[in-house]
Parts: sequence; C-alpha cells; structure tokens
Amino acid sequence: MSNAPQKASIENTQLKDIVSHAKEYGFVFPSSEIYDGLAAVYDYGPNGVELKNNLKRLWWQAMTQLHQNVVGIDAAIFMAPQTWVASGHVAGFNDPLVDNLDSKKRYRADVLVEDKAAEYEAAGQQDRAADLLATLGRLLTDNDLAGVKELIVSEKIVCPISGTCNWTDVRQFNLMYSTQGSAVEGDAAQIYLRPETAQGIFVNFLNVQKSARQKVPFGIAQIGKAFRNEIVARQFIFRMREFEQMEMQFFVRPGTEEEWYNNWKQARRRFHEAVGLAPEKLRFHDHDKLAHYAKAAVDIEYEFPFGFKEIEGIHSRSDFDLTQHQELSRKKQQYFDNDVNPETGKPYGNYVPYVVETSVGADRLFLATLCQAYQEETITEGEGEKEQTKTRTFLKLHPALAPIKAAIFPLVKKDGMPEKAEEIFNSLRFDFPVIMEERDAIGKRYTRQDLIGTPFCIVVDGQTLEDETVTVRHRDSREQTRMPISELRAYIGQAVSFARIFEKL
Amino acid sequence: MSNAPQKASIENTQLKDIVSHAKEYGFVFPSSEIYDGLAAVYDYGPNGVELKNNLKRLWWQAMTQLHQNVVGIDAAIFMAPQTWVASGHVAGFNDPLVDNLDSKKRYRADVLVEDKAAEYEAAGQQDRAADLLATLGRLLTDNDLAGVKELIVSEKIVCPISGTCNWTDVRQFNLMYSTQGSAVEGDAAQIYLRPETAQGIFVNFLNVQKSARQKVPFGIAQIGKAFRNEIVARQFIFRMREFEQMEMQFFVRPGTEEEWYNNWKQARRRFHEAVGLAPEKLRFHDHDKLAHYAKAAVDIEYEFPFGFKEIEGIHSRSDFDLTQHQELSRKKQQYFDNDVNPETGKPYGNYVPYVVETSVGADRLFLATLCQAYQEETITEGEGEKEQTKTRTFLKLHPALAPIKAAIFPLVKKDGMPEKAEEIFNSLRFDFPVIMEERDAIGKRYTRQDLIGTPFCIVVDGQTLEDETVTVRHRDSREQTRMPISELRAYIGQAVSFARIFEKL
Repeated sequence: MSNAPQKASIENTQLKDIVSHAKEYGFVFPSSEIYDGLAAVYDYGPNGVELKNNLKRLWWQAMTQLHQNVVGIDAAIFMAPQTWVASGHVAGFNDPLVDNLDSKKRYRADVLVEDKAAEYEAAGQQDRAADLLATLGRLLTDNDLAGVKELIVSEKIVCPISGTCNWTDVRQFNLMYSTQGSAVEGDAAQIYLRPETAQGIFVNFLNVQKSARQKVPFGIAQIGKAFRNEIVARQFIFRMREFEQMEMQFFVRPGTEEEWYNNWKQARRRFHEAVGLAPEKLRFHDHDKLAHYAKAAVDIEYEFPFGFKEIEGIHSRSDFDLTQHQELSRKKQQYFDNDVNPETGKPYGNYVPYVVETSVGADRLFLATLCQAYQEETITEGEGEKEQTKTRTFLKLHPALAPIKAAIFPLVKKDGMPEKAEEIFNSLRFDFPVIMEERDAIGKRYTRQDLIGTPFCIVVDGQTLEDETVTVRHRDSREQTRMPISELRAYIGQAVSFARIFEKL
Repeated sequence: MSNAPQKASIENTQLKDIVSHAKEYGFVFPSSEIYDGLAAVYDYGPNGVELKNNLKRLWWQAMTQLHQNVVGIDAAIFMAPQTWVASGHVAGFNDPLVDNLDSKKRYRADVLVEDKAAEYEAAGQQDRAADLLATLGRLLTDNDLAGVKELIVSEKIVCPISGTCNWTDVRQFNLMYSTQGSAVEGDAAQIYLRPETAQGIFVNFLNVQKSARQKVPFGIAQIGKAFRNEIVARQFIFRMREFEQMEMQFFVRPGTEEEWYNNWKQARRRFHEAVGLAPEKLRFHDHDKLAHYAKAAVDIEYEFPFGFKEIEGIHSRSDFDLTQHQELSRKKQQYFDNDVNPETGKPYGNYVPYVVETSVGADRLFLATLCQAYQEETITEGEGEKEQTKTRTFLKLHPALAPIKAAIFPLVKKDGMPEKAEEIFNSLRFDFPVIMEERDAIGKRYTRQDLIGTPFCIVVDGQTLEDETVTVRHRDSREQTRMPISELRAYIGQAVSFARIFEKL
C-alpha cells in the first residue's frame, strides 16, 4: 500500500475502465453518490449483487456442502467487548499515523518510510532500501514511535501535498470502529464493529462442536461484514472501510497443523482457479514476518491491474485465540479426543485445538473475478466493402457466476414472437435468472448482454413459430447454434451449475 | 411491546421450549455466550444459518428472478450522514425514555402508559383505557414530554422493580447507533449504522434505474443488516439491536399507488403461506395511525407463542423519500415516463415516482418458520406388551427450507454398508446438503434428524448391496419406502426445489 499518487500507466487505465464499466452496467456504485459519496465505501448494483452472491454461495457450498466436517455459522457484527480484549485488537490493532502540519494531511508513518525505500530501490540503491526497511521493522516491533518520527525527519521525507517535512509526532491509531453500548444503564458502555469475522467463530467453538456433533478435525465457515477505519483506503473496492470476509477456521489436533495448513493452501488455490482466475495470475506469497502466535502464513495473491495483491490468507494460528478466550472468560475451550494415540495406546484426551484459518476477502475475489473477466477483442464484422473492424468488450465470466444466465429476444416485436419469448421466459425463470428484451436492434441487444457477461442469448425468429427451435448465441465465441426449445432448460442448467466447478476442487 | 414481566403461560412455555431447542440443535446461540452474552444480539448456528439462508434466497429469487421488473442491490451499512437527515431519522427516530430514580431502571415512557391502559382494559374499564391512549397519542404528536411525565405521575404508574413513582424527566432518545467517521480530517465526523435498509435503495434509485434500464413501474430489492438501539429488546430474536431486513421498494406512477399497494399486499401474504406459515396464523393489521407522508400501511402479522406480531410491513410511502433526497442533495430524483397519458394524449413526462414498500424482518420470518415447524406429537411404538406411547418432537419444515435435505445411514458399520453410504453421499452432495451418519442406533439417528427437520433419511441395508435399493424414511409420516439409488437424486431434488414454492406465488 503506498501513499504516493498513482502513476498513469496501462494498468491503471485498465482499472479506470473497469471502475467505469462497473458503474455503468450496474455492478458497483460509489456509496451515497447523490451526497458526493462516502470515502472507501461502495454499493453493489443489480448485476454486482448477483455476481457477488454467486461467489459467496459457491464458496459456502464448496466449504460446507462438499465437506462433511465443515459447518457454517452467522454470528452478529456486535459482540461482547471482552472478545476484542482477548483477541488483542483493543491493545494492538493500530496503525502509526502522522500529520503534516502544513497540508493538514494524515498519513501512515510506516507507509511513508516504505515509499522512501521504494524510491531508493527504483534508483538502484537496494542496500540502502533494505537498511531502511530493517530499521523501520525494528522500530515498529519495539513500538518506538519517536524513533519512527526521527527516521522520517532524518530521511527528509516530505508530504506529497505541501512538500514540507513539518510533521506532528507519530501516534498509534486503533482501526476498530466503536459505537455506543446499550441505552440501558449497566450494560456495556461501548461496543465495537468487528474488525474480522474470525472471533465470531472462536467464541462459538464449543456451541458449534456440540450442537453439530463434530469431531476434530472439523471446520466452521462464516461469511459476513467487517469494518476497519483505514487511513489509506483506495484501489476501488480492494481496500474498503466496510468489507465482507469469507472465513473458515479449521480445528485440528496439535501436531497435525502443518499437514492441514498445506492441504488447505492447495485446496484454496484450486478454488480460485476453478472459478476462473488464470493460473499465471495467481501466486503464493509467504509472510516474511509472522505474528508471535503464528506457525505459518501465506497469501494467495492475484495479479490485479495495480499488481499482485492478496485475495486470501491461509494462517496456521496455533491455539492462540481459543487459549486467550479461555483465560479471559474462564470457560474451558477444550475438546476431548477419543482417538487413540498410537504412541501411548491411550486416547489423546483433552486439549485446546490448533487452528488453520482460510480467509478470503469477498470484495477482493469479486474484483479479481471482474478484472479477469473484462475482455477487449478486435473483431471483424460484415463482408467485402462493408467489412469493418471494431473492439468488442465483454465479460468472460464463468456461466455459473454470471448475473443473468440467458437473455431471450424476440427477433421482431410482432408475428407472435414476443408471446413465444415470454413463454420461454416463464418456462426458465423458476430455475435460473433469465431476462426478456425486445428493445433495440438484435446486434445492440447482443452487445448489451456481452457487457454484463450473459453467457447465452436465445432468439425467437420466424422459424421458431414453425418448428419450436431457437438460435442460441454464445457470448465468448459469438457462434450461434439452433436448438429445440425443449432442450434449453437442461442445456443451460448444466452449463450454469456449480457442479462443474465442484468437480475441479 | 410491553415492559411488564412476562406472565407464565402455555404460550411462553412453548417459546421457552423453542429457544432451548434452537440452542441445543444449532439454530440460534446467544451472542458471545462465553462472556455472558450481549443483550438482544444472537448468533445463528450451523442449522440456523442454513435455514436463514434458504429463507433469504427464496425471498430474493421470488422478488428478482420471478419478476422481470424487480432487480436487487446490496448497499453498504455505512452511508453519507446526510441520508439520515433527509429521511427524518436524525430529527425524529426517537423513543421517549424515563428512568426510575430508585431502581435506576430505564423504561420507554409510552410503553409504561400503554401497559397501564392494558390494565384498565383487563379490568373492564375500556373507556378509561381508550381515553388514556388518546391522551398519550396527543402528547406524543405534540412532542410534549413534560406532559407525558405528568401523565405517568397522575396515573400513579410505578416502576415494576422499585414499586415507586419517583421518575426522572422524560426525554427523547435517538435509536440510531453512530460511530466515528473517517480517520482522515475533513471527512464526516460521525457516521450512523443504518436503522433501515430502505434508504440504501432510495439514494441509488437513478443509478439502478439507468444501469438496469428499468421502466416505471419497477422495484429494487435488498437484504441486509440494520441496527437500532432498542431500550426494550426481547422475545428472543423477535426484537434485536442488530437485525436483518428484506426490503423491496416498488416505484410507481403517482395515481397508481393504491392498485400496487393492494397487489403487493396480497402477493406478500401468498409468499408467507407458500413457505409454510399456517393461513389461520396469519392476519393483516392496518395501521391505526399513518406517518404524515404515508397513504396506507398494513402489517402482516403471525401468531407467535407470544401473540400476533408483525413479520412484514407493506407501506404506501408517496414520493416522500425521493423528494427529501432531491431537496437535500439538489440532485433531481425524477423519471421521464414515455407512456402516453390517455387523458392528454401526451407522455406522462417527468415525475418523482411514488413508492410502495414491502419490508420483511428476516429474523422474524425465521422465528415464525421455526415456531410453525416445531411439532410435538404422541406416537405409539412397539407391539403387544412392548407397546409404548411417547412424545416425538420434530421440525416440520418445508423440504426446500430444511438445513439438511437427506441423511444417509449405513444400517450397520460393516459388510460394505458404510462404503455404499459414502458413495451415495458423494453422488448427492454436489446438488444439495446431505450428511452421512453411522453413530448410534438407527432409531436414535432418525430422532436426531427429526429434531433438525431433515425431510428424508436414506438407509443402506443388506438388501442395498444386492439390488441397489435403499429405504427412504419420511420425516412427517415416519413411513418408509424402498427406492432405487439411481432415483434418489431426482426424487429429493424435486422435493426440495424452490420451484414448488414459486408455483404457489
């Protein structure tokens, strides 16, 4: 994450195109736009909500329906405040901030220094860059904020707006949003908006294990909103103040965490490839620095137009969270393992399970999917003198993810074609989202569906009224095939089914 | 809503049973229970989240997939603060509160008076009750809080805890939660957690209308969280501080609102009957008092164990919200209607559309569904001397709503039965949620599935290995039928399909 103004480049032009496409075709709108928006908050439009819901449902079913030992929950955003004491968020979920006294602009102090290191690197001064980052790392680990300020001054880092080195002290700023507690006296005075969904899983560990009769190893999956008061929030929906997570905490017997970590790492990558992200645009990135309780951590990164960035994290978290909750709540967070330990010949007995976490940013997966799907190709239309080349833009979404599965067009608005189209619409709408459209010329109607990623366009023409067949036009190839109306439901149903994705997992 | 302590009664015993069933079988847990809970907040467990997701998806598809002119959105919880000025929530979304100085307990002043009126009514003093309510209504309309205090004192209303009439002044308390604005100076200093999802639809009206190319009349549907700092929050998940709404705002040409109001009123009742709520437990309840901008308002009430209560509201809201946003944002919220007015022979032209709203409480529909499904029946088991009667508890959920669609049991854990059961599990899990269970005696396994509402239990027995048939045991009738394995997918798939519900809408 960088404070520096974004450089004009092919990549950022592409992001700009996608942002504008997302707005024009009803995928993502700036929040409260009529009031000039709310920074780093976005709303999903009619096509966006369908695409996002499809991604969420696909993840959910891949986790819970495909695995007998993974079950879901939906914990509230509001939680008892002690939760965030136990998790360490109250004490340590901070960013070091600094204000420039001339421009009155606020920055993340660590990012200012990182940007400086990137400058050195760009100038070929790799050693100087590495030294600077090492110093920064040491100061942050020691929570030496005065030292960070000194570093900024000694490196002569200036505000990109005012150009001056006139800085306030560096201070810690907690990223959690809080709100008033209950109106009833005696209740909690302040509650937080959860900064992650994981703790909703941890505090429910025993309720879920018992009510779902699960045996370790087992997982708990959850999709839900989380909130972080980010100082640097940008890159469209990549980093928002309100965002959605898809997390699964997998509880394992201590000593088996490495095996499960590796299993889930591979399984999660397969998922992203199965939904259509290009293998060459995905990579693993091991964390350089581990949290003190972590045994291992890796990001799955996708190559966005603004570079490789995290879309999912897989973390081996030890028994840190459950142990913390056990200590603060004084309620045992243990599991009795009946399985026999071959070394002792006795059951493994009581322990606090270790946890392997998989955590996807739902909005990031949405953005990756949209970037991957966004296609511009040069096509040739017409023949002879009328031949012309033009650019076709379309969304090459997996049919299972497309907001609308098929659009039904009467070729003309007469001769019973609209009625026949409506009949087809009614025969398909119970099974998947379809629309009917009779406005505009047929070519324009195809273009519109290309732009929102509809995989099939069904045209009712003169022949339809004679032999009950229609043409089916395929989004990616633009090829048209003729098909009996009676086969449409099964044909499209199969193409848009999640089963085809599940087979690859 | 009453402040009075709940009376012990058959009805409340039934609610207690349902609350305890919901916890034990993984439907609803108290939030952050290990920290002794957070008042009026609940978490959905493994079976609860599946049931709730099924209800949400059913509503969503019934709205958007079945209607060509209804599309969805998913607006953020955070919105520009001006939104709530325009909607009237900043000025007027208040409850009148009063504290008892001896018990230090806080109450809703209006509810104290309403409870007193209920006492008069119970004592046969109908006129006195009516007078009291009329006085209260007048004082609240005039925002005469001193008058409300006087009324409480003159009626000698005492605190149920301290028994004294020693009250503070009555003051207005805004129900909106707020949180800090951005960390960046110059951004909004305070933002609200939305108290309703409707405004997310109104501020996106033109973005949606244009990007989805919709013509009036059309609707925008949304499912999402909302937050209200309720002073009296109880009756389990019926009234929570964090809750979920399923709202649809239908935009119509002024003058046609009554027709659409009546259409949606009937359509929404059909929906509740189609998901399985008993017709005799549903009723319409017209609002006695309308908001100044409302043309008509009706609740669909369900008979919970604690009486008839609102699960959905249908409101004819005029052009109030769009006009308010138009005035505050100075952005036109108009639609150009090309349709020809037969009276003038010209297009209807520009107008701010009228709105008919349908607003379901997702948690309330969940609770109604659970109450409706909860069955206790006396059954006779065994024959001759071994005959005994016992009570069977089961959840008679519509198969399309059940968390698990089928449970697969190997009769015994040998002779290849577990392997065959797993084969069946794997052949069904891509299509709908199924589980396999080999623990416990077969009767206990049936009981367990009855308690979570699984419509079908599939038993693999000796005969299965010979002829590839299984027994299918039906939850409601307890009858068992024999069926080829090859027919299971289609048989269960059809039973659990939403299409059977859609046909009734």
